[in-house]
Amino acid sequence: MSKTNPKTSEGRFFEDFRLGETLVHPTPRTLTEGDRAAYMALYAPRHALTSSAPFAEACGLEGFPLDPWLVFHTVFGKTVPDVSVNAVANLGYADGRWIKPVRAGDTLSATSDVIGLKETSNGKTGVVYVRTTGRNQHGEEVLTYARWVLVRKGDASAPAPLPVVPDLPNAVGEWQLKAPAGLDFSAYDFAAAGSPHAFEDYAVGERIDQVDGMAVEEAEHMMATRLYQNTAKVHFNAFERAKDPSGKRLVYGGVVISTARALSYNGLENAQLMLALNGGRHVNPFFAGSTLFAWTEVLETARLQVPGRVGALRLRTLATKNRPCSDFPGPDAEGKYPSDVCLDLDYWIAIPARTDG
Amino acid sequence: MSKTNPKTSEGRFFEDFRLGETLVHPTPRTLTEGDRAAYMALYAPRHALTSSAPFAEACGLEGFPLDPWLVFHTVFGKTVPDVSVNAVANLGYADGRWIKPVRAGDTLSATSDVIGLKETSNGKTGVVYVRTTGRNQHGEEVLTYARWVLVRKGDASAPAPLPVVPDLPNAVGEWQLKAPAGLDFSAYDFAAAGSPHAFEDYAVGERIDQVDGMAVEEAEHMMATRLYQNTAKVHFNAFERAKDPSGKRLVYGGVVISTARALSYNGLENAQLMLALNGGRHVNPFFAGSTLFAWTEVLETARLQVPGRVGALRLRTLATKNRPCSDFPGPDAEGKYPSDVCLDLDYWIAIPARTDG
Amino acid sequence: MSKTNPKTSEGRFFEDFRLGETLVHPTPRTLTEGDRAAYMALYAPRHALTSSAPFAEACGLEGFPLDPWLVFHTVFGKTVPDVSVNAVANLGYADGRWIKPVRAGDTLSATSDVIGLKETSNGKTGVVYVRTTGRNQHGEEVLTYARWVLVRKGDASAPAPLPVVPDLPNAVGEWQLKAPAGLDFSAYDFAAAGSPHAFEDYAVGERIDQVDGMAVEEAEHMMATRLYQNTAKVHFNAFERAKDPSGKRLVYGGVVISTARALSYNGLENAQLMLALNGGRHVNPFFAGSTLFAWTEVLETARLQVPGRVGALRLRTLATKNRPCSDFPGPDAEGKYPSDVCLDLDYWIAIPARTDG
Repeated sequence: MSKTNPKTSEGRFFEDFRLGETLVHPTPRTLTEGDRAAYMALYAPRHALTSSAPFAEACGLEGFPLDPWLVFHTVFGKTVPDVSVNAVANLGYADGRWIKPVRAGDTLSATSDVIGLKETSNGKTGVVYVRTTGRNQHGEEVLTYARWVLVRKGDASAPAPLPVVPDLPNAVGEWQLKAPAGLDFSAYDFAAAGSPHAFEDYAVGERIDQVDGMAVEEAEHMMATRLYQNTAKVHFNAFERAKDPSGKRLVYGGVVISTARALSYNGLENAQLMLALNGGRHVNPFFAGSTLFAWTEVLETARLQVPGRVGALRLRTLATKNRPCSDFPGPDAEGKYPSDVCLDLDYWIAIPARTDG
Repeated sequence: MSKTNPKTSEGRFFEDFRLGETLVHPTPRTLTEGDRAAYMALYAPRHALTSSAPFAEACGLEGFPLDPWLVFHTVFGKTVPDVSVNAVANLGYADGRWIKPVRAGDTLSATSDVIGLKETSNGKTGVVYVRTTGRNQHGEEVLTYARWVLVRKGDASAPAPLPVVPDLPNAVGEWQLKAPAGLDFSAYDFAAAGSPHAFEDYAVGERIDQVDGMAVEEAEHMMATRLYQNTAKVHFNAFERAKDPSGKRLVYGGVVISTARALSYNGLENAQLMLALNGGRHVNPFFAGSTLFAWTEVLETARLQVPGRVGALRLRTLATKNRPCSDFPGPDAEGKYPSDVCLDLDYWIAIPARTDG
Repeated sequence: MSKTNPKTSEGRFFEDFRLGETLVHPTPRTLTEGDRAAYMALYAPRHALTSSAPFAEACGLEGFPLDPWLVFHTVFGKTVPDVSVNAVANLGYADGRWIKPVRAGDTLSATSDVIGLKETSNGKTGVVYVRTTGRNQHGEEVLTYARWVLVRKGDASAPAPLPVVPDLPNAVGEWQLKAPAGLDFSAYDFAAAGSPHAFEDYAVGERIDQVDGMAVEEAEHMMATRLYQNTAKVHFNAFERAKDPSGKRLVYGGVVISTARALSYNGLENAQLMLALNGGRHVNPFFAGSTLFAWTEVLETARLQVPGRVGALRLRTLATKNRPCSDFPGPDAEGKYPSDVCLDLDYWIAIPARTDG
């Protein structure tokens, strides 16, 4: 509650979380073709499966899926008022899986289970681990992921909870990957999609400089973040942010992710659908006015155990600010990132194979 | 007409208005789910009734209503070329009522009756009073409001009209409030909406600091204002505005209203639908780059004479620029506003009651 | 291909084009009402036929057409990765025809035939002429136009091709103009459209200052250009553009065209639909932060040989930056443009006639 009226919320502090509790996040949100267009204007994604309804149909899907990251950000946005309004840092993601495609007209809601709590040694903050689940209007799970954030304590004298750190996998195993119902790449139109490169053409260890750069303006990241009803003050409150050493609003990490994903089209044109989010870290902040670049490494390859020539690539995409990626910048031997690297994302995508497995 | 071609319009001047005339405003506009998404990206409204189609249906509504302020701004935008292109100031609103919800696919058009005219003593300007009505494609009224603006004279020697000042109510009476057909809060989902606070929990005189702050950029207010086809030059013509003492484009007052309304979610999560606009004044200009804050006072409470646990709150929301509202800034005893207060808005909203009335 | 991975593209250079080849451009794109709303927010078009579904229906059209320029930019955007990523300049358009209206739900794809090639005398660049065709999901042609661009050579030693310059018409002849199926202006509502001026009221040689000015911000032109999936680096890569003498991202010429078209409503309210693009040149670059103005001259008038009172005007619209157009700025006797004129566009539009032809 706020200082002046118990009805307003200033968000939860570390001591407000209880292990095992389930947070029911407001507000349900109906996504529509309007959201697809707004997402298009914000990132210029070009993957055919979410750009063309007939293309999606030809790939066996019922309906025209919205971008999986639009789904992610919408679910994520719902959690912000309850989980991360007072977060100092968004530390990481793990074990994320897109379970069912979301289409225009579907309504998303979200809940989060508190799966871990650990106060930091200085007694001023603590790490909160949540497992968030997004559901559609039928109550079906469409997305699940774990996330942990560093949250301020509101009352420094509040006692520390028993530390519990959940056991989260380093990556979603290939045996856990599931293609959306009906997905079939047997009649895939490589020319329309923009590249002849199929599953078989990507090798573990291969690196791809996505070449292009994309600037992000204040108006753009705020519009994106509002679209997801994410109201974290660090993205919007310019007055308060003027007191921060940066003096700037922080760009929502999801904007960096979606921009990097859109840039990754160049060289990964057939990486049509997100399947899983293995992990991700925003290793440096990104501010408006900078230009984002990206490069990607192939970490693993797998065949899905379904008919329809569905392959999967485990990819790692790094994004940089104001630094082209022809030299593939990343962490050094000690795991320390250069200051111009801002994202390190590990995920699985579905890609057509040229032949039956 | 313009100086160079009689087909172009430079807008009406004070002497061009005739008492009693009806202005038929172009252009009819079909609102769609695309407009809802654009509105979402611009303000991040979170009230469940306009965010979730199933939520609206569970509240007894036929169809998924678009935000009442999107309806207002769309109707208002149509009046600008005929009423306020040459306005010096938008002086006030009164007796506004949202009569029927507007849904995606509905087409809005607008007319305005000139209900008052009064030349100012300096002979250079005059106040024009209009009653504007918005209608859907079936000719049904969806919105009505009175508005008065200070308009320049094009010809200083034009004779002053007989002064007529309409008698406008200070507020829409509670007996005039009408809920949309079917509205029923009996099975209202408070958790999904984001707050347990019902009609019964709000008391006259209660003040709510909405806590959050929202910055507005040039691109954002221009996109919002274009969405409403409002082409008033003060919002768009940076070249001409460079000659103004502010040197800046003026943000359309409707952007301030919609931003304040979205901020008011924090503490008024269940204030689902606008019913009436009692009055409103833009007491200081708002320019891009500033951060908007808001606070709200409860002025009156009323029960609607319908089944379905529908309460109404008469609220007064003040919005400020670059000034948090924990001290509830407003006019002093003489009615003079601090320079950082920019909006004083008086309106009725519908809110679920916990019990039958 | 890029220097670091053969899967990524840095675009075609002059020597990569072959006369007579057909380029199949990715990615098909389904346009929706979301795109109409985004287009509205970006330009504020007010022509009734694309603003109101009932108005379009009353004009005999099946369905509610999307703005013809939204169609153009979407098709154009598809050609960029294959045609103009390495373009030094977009030199001109000719013989453009909108063949069939596009509605929400239609999916556009594009191909380009290389119809001319001519290396420039310095041996470092060459002019590429393409004929681009946009098709809907049924394979029906919806748009065709010729375009020529100055493209860099990637390898200066590549041999020059045999020079072939296609014979392109100065203008689409009035006998080639076709109205969309069903178009009928017999019951046209001039009041709703915003002006009483019909086909008969426009005279060859008449000049119209469109009066209004519209600023364009970085976020706006980037969002517009992304909406069209046009990823030309000059519009987005602020990091690389900082090395350009201008130091700025270049605004996509289509943004200038659509803004000028929207401004032209004032004085041409009934110029409802684009029929043909005779020619167009971006005679000076436009950068964000400037205010765009426009003026129009009537070049020709024609009656379409269809029932339904359909007239056509051949118009020439010039757009300027930070310069009002009351003095109709344009090229001097030698054809040289003032530095503040940025667009010279020649096109045919459909307009209602007051009487049968």
